[in-house]
Amino acid sequence: MVDINHRVGIKAPAEKVYLALTTNKGLESWWTNDVYGAGGVGSIIEFRFNGGGPDFAITQLIENNRVEWTHSGNMPEAWIGTKITFQLCSEEAQTWVRFTHSNWRESSDFMAHCSTKWAVFLLSLKDAVEANQGKPFPNDTQIDHS
Amino acid sequence: MVDINHRVGIKAPAEKVYLALTTNKGLESWWTNDVYGAGGVGSIIEFRFNGGGPDFAITQLIENNRVEWTHSGNMPEAWIGTKITFQLCSEEAQTWVRFTHSNWRESSDFMAHCSTKWAVFLLSLKDAVEANQGKPFPNDTQIDHS
Repeated sequence: MVDINHRVGIKAPAEKVYLALTTNKGLESWWTNDVYGAGGVGSIIEFRFNGGGPDFAITQLIENNRVEWTHSGNMPEAWIGTKITFQLCSEEAQTWVRFTHSNWRESSDFMAHCSTKWAVFLLSLKDAVEANQGKPFPNDTQIDHS
Repeated sequence: MVDINHRVGIKAPAEKVYLALTTNKGLESWWTNDVYGAGGVGSIIEFRFNGGGPDFAITQLIENNRVEWTHSGNMPEAWIGTKITFQLCSEEAQTWVRFTHSNWRESSDFMAHCSTKWAVFLLSLKDAVEANQGKPFPNDTQIDHS
């Protein structure tokens, strides 16, 4: 199994970062502008990009500390069986966000694409929380010309 | 062993991307403004950030196609034994750059930090080659507040 790992530091309390990870409105501020279903453990969040997109089941929530999603549904196929975690850790100057998208079957080109794109979206999360200037889809930073 | 994987697509011929990966001037356009020693296989490239920084030995060069560096020296300690590759693949619309920083001993916080930071620098490479607008250190995009 192969994992994507990232880490950013956000100048804001953990409470504010946690809201951006656990509410439709928060998620719409940095990943995609079309999110439905965020709620408690067991909820299925539907992330949509021009109509299509992945679903994730919320499998763990520790308030202001940890968010875990397990991929749900059939697409994208390479994401089946994968899991996403956001681990928060507050220090005086910032809240650290340790991100993993784990359990990929292989380090394919698509996985490498997603790794770069996750960095882009985590910086969008940082800008959304710090300055209300996230760049969710469809205004996300482009990493290629496809 | 754990790897960092990324992939960006650059609107330029492979020749231009290859130059940005194999010359001091090219490397200074996107990673850090202080690079010395880029040359043929066996050369040691010294990347400096405010005086300190890693050295890499060039271990493979395939013109306009592949660049491989092996970490050389003693710092940062977590990079000892690691290898960096840039694999280029030209299509009509763009040159794909598949990046790996491989052979990490563990997926530590520092590894996660480097993963995010490599994404930032690969987007800097894209902007440098496409528009002469790279953001090498010390003008690099910040991912935290340390």
